[in-house]
Amino acid sequence: MSTDPDKQLVIRCRAAIVWKPGGSFSIEEVEVAPPKAKEVRIKIVATALCGTEMKMLKNKNLQHQHYPIIMGHEGAGIVESVGEGVSTVKAGDKVIALFLPQCGECTSCLNSAGNFCIKFKQGETHLMSDGTSRFTCKGKPVYHFGNTSTFSEYTVMNEISVTKIDAAAPLEKVFLVSCGFSTGYGGAINTAKVTPGSTCAVFGLGGVGLSVIMGCKAAGAARIIAVDINKDKFEKAKEVGATECINPQDYEKPIQEVLFDLTGDGVDFSFEVIGNPETVAAALASCHESHGVCVIIGLVTGVQLNISGHLFFSGRTLKGSVYGGWKGRDGASKLVSDYMAKKINLDALITHTLNFDKINEAVELMKTGKCVRCVLLF
Amino acid sequence: MSTDPDKQLVIRCRAAIVWKPGGSFSIEEVEVAPPKAKEVRIKIVATALCGTEMKMLKNKNLQHQHYPIIMGHEGAGIVESVGEGVSTVKAGDKVIALFLPQCGECTSCLNSAGNFCIKFKQGETHLMSDGTSRFTCKGKPVYHFGNTSTFSEYTVMNEISVTKIDAAAPLEKVFLVSCGFSTGYGGAINTAKVTPGSTCAVFGLGGVGLSVIMGCKAAGAARIIAVDINKDKFEKAKEVGATECINPQDYEKPIQEVLFDLTGDGVDFSFEVIGNPETVAAALASCHESHGVCVIIGLVTGVQLNISGHLFFSGRTLKGSVYGGWKGRDGASKLVSDYMAKKINLDALITHTLNFDKINEAVELMKTGKCVRCVLLF
Repeated sequence: MSTDPDKQLVIRCRAAIVWKPGGSFSIEEVEVAPPKAKEVRIKIVATALCGTEMKMLKNKNLQHQHYPIIMGHEGAGIVESVGEGVSTVKAGDKVIALFLPQCGECTSCLNSAGNFCIKFKQGETHLMSDGTSRFTCKGKPVYHFGNTSTFSEYTVMNEISVTKIDAAAPLEKVFLVSCGFSTGYGGAINTAKVTPGSTCAVFGLGGVGLSVIMGCKAAGAARIIAVDINKDKFEKAKEVGATECINPQDYEKPIQEVLFDLTGDGVDFSFEVIGNPETVAAALASCHESHGVCVIIGLVTGVQLNISGHLFFSGRTLKGSVYGGWKGRDGASKLVSDYMAKKINLDALITHTLNFDKINEAVELMKTGKCVRCVLLF
Repeated sequence: MSTDPDKQLVIRCRAAIVWKPGGSFSIEEVEVAPPKAKEVRIKIVATALCGTEMKMLKNKNLQHQHYPIIMGHEGAGIVESVGEGVSTVKAGDKVIALFLPQCGECTSCLNSAGNFCIKFKQGETHLMSDGTSRFTCKGKPVYHFGNTSTFSEYTVMNEISVTKIDAAAPLEKVFLVSCGFSTGYGGAINTAKVTPGSTCAVFGLGGVGLSVIMGCKAAGAARIIAVDINKDKFEKAKEVGATECINPQDYEKPIQEVLFDLTGDGVDFSFEVIGNPETVAAALASCHESHGVCVIIGLVTGVQLNISGHLFFSGRTLKGSVYGGWKGRDGASKLVSDYMAKKINLDALITHTLNFDKINEAVELMKTGKCVRCVLLF
């Protein structure tokens, strides 16, 4: 491995590559080219697997068919060098990697009602904006992922996909602001705008679902009903704020009817944090006919939702949420400050820590559901 | 016909009955029983066919399988007599008939975020709350419709389904506040919360769609794109505020792509005012990926919506709207005041006037699309 930011040399380092759809991670030596204009090369310090990677590993038919690939979109690190024209970060800065950029110029960035920077689509090419990759392995170009590719000791991102944070922030904690925590917490606070005294239901209790619970609690919800078919997840859900936990498999009735029985007229806010079309329909049906808001946080890209039109007749709302409604750079920066000010709790989500080389062990831990987040450290 | 409010006699009068699914209206003499406790008997002065009745006449499989029936849910009249315990209206008061009641006590009425009074469901029984009908024809009970049954010279409604209005209000105009105008106008103002300077698309240019256009205009939308496959409706759409009119049949591309071409990144707000599941999907796809809001105003009860999950990934919102988000009694009362203060324009929607007995002619006029609203006068 060589690093020479002044001369902007190619860096050789470790990365976890998936060579083909449905494959596992293979730790390889890769070459990481220097950042081009408006790009930043980052030494990743902490990263983790999120639900999206778990889905990509499992589902051979997912739309991301660019292989070999370096996945990873939840991570934090230190700027190693910057390309021409980069002005907002410099070598040595601690940064959060953002799968959702914030260009500051598009019709999303300029509108306060949303956060989906149109430049996100750059990530869908799995290449940098000049149409090439910065990664090479065994002489072959390797595809990027999610504008981030944090499963490499060094990665190259666009300047608009990183945000500078407090130099005192512990990267092995605040990397969670990169996706999981922000997505769930913001889904409750920003997208649903949970109201004080309300009743909420959260379907799916992974790291993002737990963060939704924290958001509902912070917003003052009176009842937070956690729903999962794995009862091993209930203890942690209660620890972070769930007032009740229910397992749909314990009932003969559909879960939406169970929730109506429990609440009278349905929940005020429901959250689908799985990415299952049937659960989206159930979560929408669970919420109050008149003012109920159902937020889709789970990844439903590539699936069709089949929903009874009648559910909308009385006024229900179905809303998508990406990165918890936070504008990428502004949100990550604010949430790290909140963590430093002890306003939010990230520690509860970190249940395991492993050396990056053990990434396939982390995959197994995530599958059991006992691991919320396994920090991978380089 | 006899009316004797003091003795609370049965009234004999004209009504339009549909005897079987798919049937046309038959003008009959009916008997209208006196109002029971918390009920009001009303002399209907003006009523009209709305999209819901047009669908019911056309679709033999619609869920309303209660025949014989007296339809009609858009109307206004004068209180003839009141049942025991009625305190908010009295004989002689001018009132608006409301298919959406406002009981003031349920979890919807008590929540400022919605308007779907749970007592609406009373209407789904097609009977009054004691489980009987107030209408009889040829010795047979006749089903009620929509808490209203305005296609009868006299009808009985629950007190919570009528609202008293200004004694000077012209009923042959303000009856439109009963459904069509309020549903569309409020869908833009209350449900979508259209913002100044925004771009809107309205799919379907019947009376409700035209009212959506008026709502978008009142909210300060900069562009209002009216969409319909009947170009004869474009002139009226422009008259009430559309800035552009497009016919999907003039394009080879799907309408959502046409709207992206016209607007760059999609419309800020879209409105489905037809009740077609394919149009709902197109209207959602037409709106801005990040902050776009699609409001379903057309009746999609009884149909399944099949929507790509991907449309929600970036943050779009799909929202139902009933009675334009207005709380029944409060909304109707406010809108009649607004009409009297010349803040809203109902006259543009009234294109035809007929004697009530000509209701089948009104059906034919509605089918052509040249008639927006045909007032039926008793």
